Amino acid sequence: MASQKRKEVPAWDKLKKFVDLMDRPDHHLFHLIRTEGRFQKFSLEGGGIFYDFSRQRVDPSVMENLFALARGRGIKDRFSAMMRGEKVNATENRAALHTACRDFSGASISVDGADVMPEIRRVREEIREFSGKVHSGEIRGATGKRFSHAVVVGIGGSYLGSQFVSEALAADADKGIELHYLANVDINDFGRIEGRIDPEATLWIIISKSYTTPETLANTEQAYSFMREKGVDPARHVVTVAAKGSPGDDPSNPVLKAFHMFDFIGGRYSVSSAVGGVPLSLYLGYDRFERFLKGAEEMDLHTRDAAEEKNLPLIAALIGIWNNDFLGYPAQSIIPYSTPLNQLAPHIQQLYMESNGKSVTAEGERLEADSGVIIFGEPGTNAQHSFFQLAHQGRPFPIDFIGVLRPQYKGKAAMSKGVTNHQELWANLISQPLALAQGKADENPAKVFGGNRPSSTIVLEDLSPENVGRLLSFYEAKTVYEAFVWGINPFDQYGVELGKILAGDIRKKMAQANETGDAGFEGLDPIRKFYLKRLYAGRL
Amino acid sequence: MASQKRKEVPAWDKLKKFVDLMDRPDHHLFHLIRTEGRFQKFSLEGGGIFYDFSRQRVDPSVMENLFALARGRGIKDRFSAMMRGEKVNATENRAALHTACRDFSGASISVDGADVMPEIRRVREEIREFSGKVHSGEIRGATGKRFSHAVVVGIGGSYLGSQFVSEALAADADKGIELHYLANVDINDFGRIEGRIDPEATLWIIISKSYTTPETLANTEQAYSFMREKGVDPARHVVTVAAKGSPGDDPSNPVLKAFHMFDFIGGRYSVSSAVGGVPLSLYLGYDRFERFLKGAEEMDLHTRDAAEEKNLPLIAALIGIWNNDFLGYPAQSIIPYSTPLNQLAPHIQQLYMESNGKSVTAEGERLEADSGVIIFGEPGTNAQHSFFQLAHQGRPFPIDFIGVLRPQYKGKAAMSKGVTNHQELWANLISQPLALAQGKADENPAKVFGGNRPSSTIVLEDLSPENVGRLLSFYEAKTVYEAFVWGINPFDQYGVELGKILAGDIRKKMAQANETGDAGFEGLDPIRKFYLKRLYAGRL
Repeated sequence: MASQKRKEVPAWDKLKKFVDLMDRPDHHLFHLIRTEGRFQKFSLEGGGIFYDFSRQRVDPSVMENLFALARGRGIKDRFSAMMRGEKVNATENRAALHTACRDFSGASISVDGADVMPEIRRVREEIREFSGKVHSGEIRGATGKRFSHAVVVGIGGSYLGSQFVSEALAADADKGIELHYLANVDINDFGRIEGRIDPEATLWIIISKSYTTPETLANTEQAYSFMREKGVDPARHVVTVAAKGSPGDDPSNPVLKAFHMFDFIGGRYSVSSAVGGVPLSLYLGYDRFERFLKGAEEMDLHTRDAAEEKNLPLIAALIGIWNNDFLGYPAQSIIPYSTPLNQLAPHIQQLYMESNGKSVTAEGERLEADSGVIIFGEPGTNAQHSFFQLAHQGRPFPIDFIGVLRPQYKGKAAMSKGVTNHQELWANLISQPLALAQGKADENPAKVFGGNRPSSTIVLEDLSPENVGRLLSFYEAKTVYEAFVWGINPFDQYGVELGKILAGDIRKKMAQANETGDAGFEGLDPIRKFYLKRLYAGRL
Repeated sequence: MASQKRKEVPAWDKLKKFVDLMDRPDHHLFHLIRTEGRFQKFSLEGGGIFYDFSRQRVDPSVMENLFALARGRGIKDRFSAMMRGEKVNATENRAALHTACRDFSGASISVDGADVMPEIRRVREEIREFSGKVHSGEIRGATGKRFSHAVVVGIGGSYLGSQFVSEALAADADKGIELHYLANVDINDFGRIEGRIDPEATLWIIISKSYTTPETLANTEQAYSFMREKGVDPARHVVTVAAKGSPGDDPSNPVLKAFHMFDFIGGRYSVSSAVGGVPLSLYLGYDRFERFLKGAEEMDLHTRDAAEEKNLPLIAALIGIWNNDFLGYPAQSIIPYSTPLNQLAPHIQQLYMESNGKSVTAEGERLEADSGVIIFGEPGTNAQHSFFQLAHQGRPFPIDFIGVLRPQYKGKAAMSKGVTNHQELWANLISQPLALAQGKADENPAKVFGGNRPSSTIVLEDLSPENVGRLLSFYEAKTVYEAFVWGINPFDQYGVELGKILAGDIRKKMAQANETGDAGFEGLDPIRKFYLKRLYAGRL
């Protein structure tokens, strides 16, 4: 697939001319939000969620040119091509079919002439069956105990999506399984989990596409050593999620079950595959996982089919481009006014920054514009008491506010100042975007609020599995659409390779020192040598 | 205290001239780190920790001018003045004496002519005594059960510091008390904690200086309602940490114990006061809390006394200013290669962004330079598998790497690829700063690494309470020193006020709707009206 280049799209240059206009005092958000029909024009429902961009620094002409940019770059066609199985991951010559994992249409999707859907359905069915048997007690640990703990061993994309979803839906976790994530190679992580699990009742889910990720292999070694020490047979306590034919799918290393993932699904897009499916089905039941997928599918179809002007992720992506490349904001914050969504920002931080932190187009041309921004966030109102000082009076950054109309927990509703906690939460959610947008004059310079700080507001009816799926798909599609505007490949991640290679060199030096007892580390540059010697000082 | 203004310090303008120099290819970090004596010149020990800034984009001339800037602005004198009790928080006419909370010198510190140390010592003694009696079982719940849960009810500065320290030292939590944080007003938070505690064995620690924080009051209402429902007497299950004479220190509302905090300690600097002291002493024992304070004190004294060229927080602050105002990096990441430090970044995010997210000097003059940056971070190696793609090949941002030489957990040491987990962790920590600094050429444009990405590396011997205290004090001092260079007041937070006022308006509308049943919300602007009606749609 050839990407569209910037110079071919006149809308890009036209948009540049609107920057000065938007900087004019009469285009301050204070005025924009008071324009007749502003809210109706700049808010919409789609794919099951509500999106309000009335507090973004856009006006109808800016939006018109952004839509022209989207059309000029053909981003909707590219999205359709992606969903059809074309090799949009050009640098790695792969399709990018996370959407296929939640395709319940019954249609076929062909990659290299073969329909991938039967395999996807087969794996889904395996997950349904396996998790059902664990819940019923048909599958138990080696000593006959029911499984009550599951430890996900995986890093990056192998756990961040699952962690987001399992936190969001924790109130629904009624299957008697406690879920733990063992991601970091820090041995303190293993120590902490060890103290919380019953080895006879623990299922280990090892997740790594290549099954060569050093951190995951190291933690797997600790887990196997732990199981042997506790006298439980790993073959009856381990499942793997890995590529077919990888070391994680090796019959000579027997496990309870090996689930397959596919080369057309990247780690950061993999929560809809077995990577999320196995842990989430164990934790929440397969039915809820499927509801999550169906919510995501609804948003996928909206993203593919809705016209530009009605397309939530596409509009959000265009605003992302506008804020980043034209208005010059280097970061974006995601603030859900819902603590169960506390792992959304870390997940989207990975999804977006790993996808769009690129400097070259898919064809290898150097990008002139800045691509990805820095994503960060914490739940509100917590964030108001943390970093919102800077948002209001310091360096401005655009914010996605997220509200959930109905809380999961309905047990307590004591009133404070005449309102419930949930209403207090919403009083703040309703007020912050306005405060940021309109600002406030004051005689005391320390109390002046400049305003003109852009934000969007996303509303979910509740934290159902469907809505969590919709939200995930929304951000995945926003990420991909932004990449398609720039013409970059959001599916590779060559930027992580150099560190891996250098770490491999050091690992070899360490292994040698461990073996020989000689921790002199001669021949290395002074800086690395210093750290190695310091690390080994207490040891050898 | 008059702050120094930028124009008076020639070093600022001189530094501008070095920006082009540092952008030259021969000043790329690839070359700088290969300069003779680089590491010796740009790394040092102080206050009990090690700091390496050899991979920052500085050379001796830049450092020289940065030191001249520090001297020109008199920031060391200001720091001494702060520690002596002068009213450095000029806009609020208050001292800023978080350092006094860890002053074990026996000297007096005078504010408005009165020595504050006796009160600080008295509160410390009360914490020691109270936590000791809880641990011995002398103080128990209303039904005679020993306390085994403590819930901290507080938001922002009332919990983020404690959360950082309690996570960092969780391996030392041997007092049989589980600690929970109830910060957000989201009712889901209360629901989640409710399911995890035994009401008869739970101590509630309500923390709010003014005792008027709406979120904290709302959660306090839920807690009281819960206690009454469970038949336990709140007077025997609640302690408060609040200003003397505030509603949290009201004898007509009896509590187990009311601890005082002082107007000269701001929330985000309060973990060394009773705000951190009460929960941390319950969780870890008072002795460990005192060791934490003593580590912080050691770094305070280093910060006050060490010459500019030997002063870790001062150097870190100058590099912060250099990266932000001269090299133009809008964000900074904190990446501890130690999962127990996972709450360091959220805490420093608040500490720094709330302190330095200002647009005016302490005298109310508009700042010409950008003050605070965006702080974000996750533990490594997790972050390598999350957002480091962007760090290596996208938008660059400076990073503080943090390493801990000895892990807390020593139970498991299976080897993978010839190294332990802890060594694997360090292999990565040693390699990432180098990869970021030097980059790598490649024929394939997608595999080119531009390098020249700056970072520092901080090393702690272990995660002792002292070292956690040193690390805290380091970042507090760095934050304050940066503020003193800009001449801003890092101790006020007027930027959070406007949102509070607007939320108060909405709260009133809601309370009225709750009372009258009329949820028409007439008279409001269309946007806020829409959200209110949508929220109430399912309810009234």
